[in-house]
Amino acid sequence: MSKPLILVTNDDGITAPGLRALVKSMQELGEVVVVAPDSPQSGMGHAITLDNTLYSKRVVLDASKDAAKEYSCSGTPADCVKLALQELLDRRPDICISGINHGSNASINVIYSGTMSAAIEAGIEGIPAIGFSLCDYSWEADFAPAQEAIKKIVAEALKNGIPKGVVLNVNIPKVAHGEIKGIKVCRQARANWKEKFDKRTNPSGKDYYWLTGEFQLLDKGEDTDEWALSKGYISVVPTQFDLTAHHTIQDINTWNLNE
Amino acid sequence: MSKPLILVTNDDGITAPGLRALVKSMQELGEVVVVAPDSPQSGMGHAITLDNTLYSKRVVLDASKDAAKEYSCSGTPADCVKLALQELLDRRPDICISGINHGSNASINVIYSGTMSAAIEAGIEGIPAIGFSLCDYSWEADFAPAQEAIKKIVAEALKNGIPKGVVLNVNIPKVAHGEIKGIKVCRQARANWKEKFDKRTNPSGKDYYWLTGEFQLLDKGEDTDEWALSKGYISVVPTQFDLTAHHTIQDINTWNLNE
Repeated sequence: MSKPLILVTNDDGITAPGLRALVKSMQELGEVVVVAPDSPQSGMGHAITLDNTLYSKRVVLDASKDAAKEYSCSGTPADCVKLALQELLDRRPDICISGINHGSNASINVIYSGTMSAAIEAGIEGIPAIGFSLCDYSWEADFAPAQEAIKKIVAEALKNGIPKGVVLNVNIPKVAHGEIKGIKVCRQARANWKEKFDKRTNPSGKDYYWLTGEFQLLDKGEDTDEWALSKGYISVVPTQFDLTAHHTIQDINTWNLNE
Repeated sequence: MSKPLILVTNDDGITAPGLRALVKSMQELGEVVVVAPDSPQSGMGHAITLDNTLYSKRVVLDASKDAAKEYSCSGTPADCVKLALQELLDRRPDICISGINHGSNASINVIYSGTMSAAIEAGIEGIPAIGFSLCDYSWEADFAPAQEAIKKIVAEALKNGIPKGVVLNVNIPKVAHGEIKGIKVCRQARANWKEKFDKRTNPSGKDYYWLTGEFQLLDKGEDTDEWALSKGYISVVPTQFDLTAHHTIQDINTWNLNE
């Protein structure tokens, strides 16, 4: 039996330590091909490149004999997945793994996440997909404590399959080696960002803003990703791209829309 | 009683005919403030501007006495909403209306849609929100046939409120005046894009790609947005930003994650 083909991508860019760590782990499970942005794409949500050219090239970032085949791409994470599937891979991948993101994509962050948009793009194409994020924004974050759990989750996904129409959003707490309590399947916590714009004036006298903000958890549930992470667990949220709020269709049907 | 405050935005940019038409209709229902991108942002998904400066300025695109207050912004649709709520508006809007998009945001297009990301951003902040799209990509599209229905939907939303955690994704078929059959509350159809990359070589010999694709409807249901649109109805899909696939949590809990 041939080894599973694992497409690896991310949103922090192809040189990000989180991606380099992920490639190493995934090579223990299968044949890895990397197609990742040539520059950081954080906060890109599910952006795609419509009115601009996309560049892509083979790159060698690891000179070892067993190195994965790697391509950089000028586009967004979703572009990388589209380009990989249609142009760069010579067969359909068995799974697409995105990350390891430098920073949390738990709760409402999933909406803004380039890491998760890559996984969702693969999911839309019917390919099992998982996004991994470590709750540590530092470029020097330590990805080692998470490696065993990541391999276990991917191996279980390859074995069991992921339900149709669903991708996994996995977040890993920032804890020392051996201190991860376990893995919990969760729901997305209700939360938002309390924005604050830092208003400044540029050298030519024009006002501009920096977006800053503070995370606000609006959910006291003990079945959420934020709760699990706060207790030292890895959170796994099955995430869907059918956004229909089915339970509200009946309610909106009572509106006076067709008198 | 003061008139409702209506925040209007879009992703095609502040000069787009779809937005100009929307502003005119919304002024019949309330006080309008426009905060919209200074350039087209189609396909931006839920991107936000994290590592770059945001510019915004008052603009006058309509010199009439009753013109709405308008601001252009250098950022994405989601940025526009954040900036409006935190910096530009002097009170909380009663509703946020995004569009009218030049082109469909039905079915899977909701995932890539800048129009809908603006509405979702407002929804996350607890503000009722609706995205409107006309299934006609042309810059010269005729928005007149849709105006009465748009006003009716917004008026009903202001009267009834929109369920918590939900925003409305409204798509309008491209039909002549008087030929809209009615308004249907629907679910998001299953669909994807069959991508095709058009590979070319630039004048300096470097390969690049244009993303093109063909829409593939994967759903035969007669309760979907695509079905309603194909029959000449306006589709209204209640759309949520809790992406949890609640029905699959039990299944994934059977995986061997914590042995």
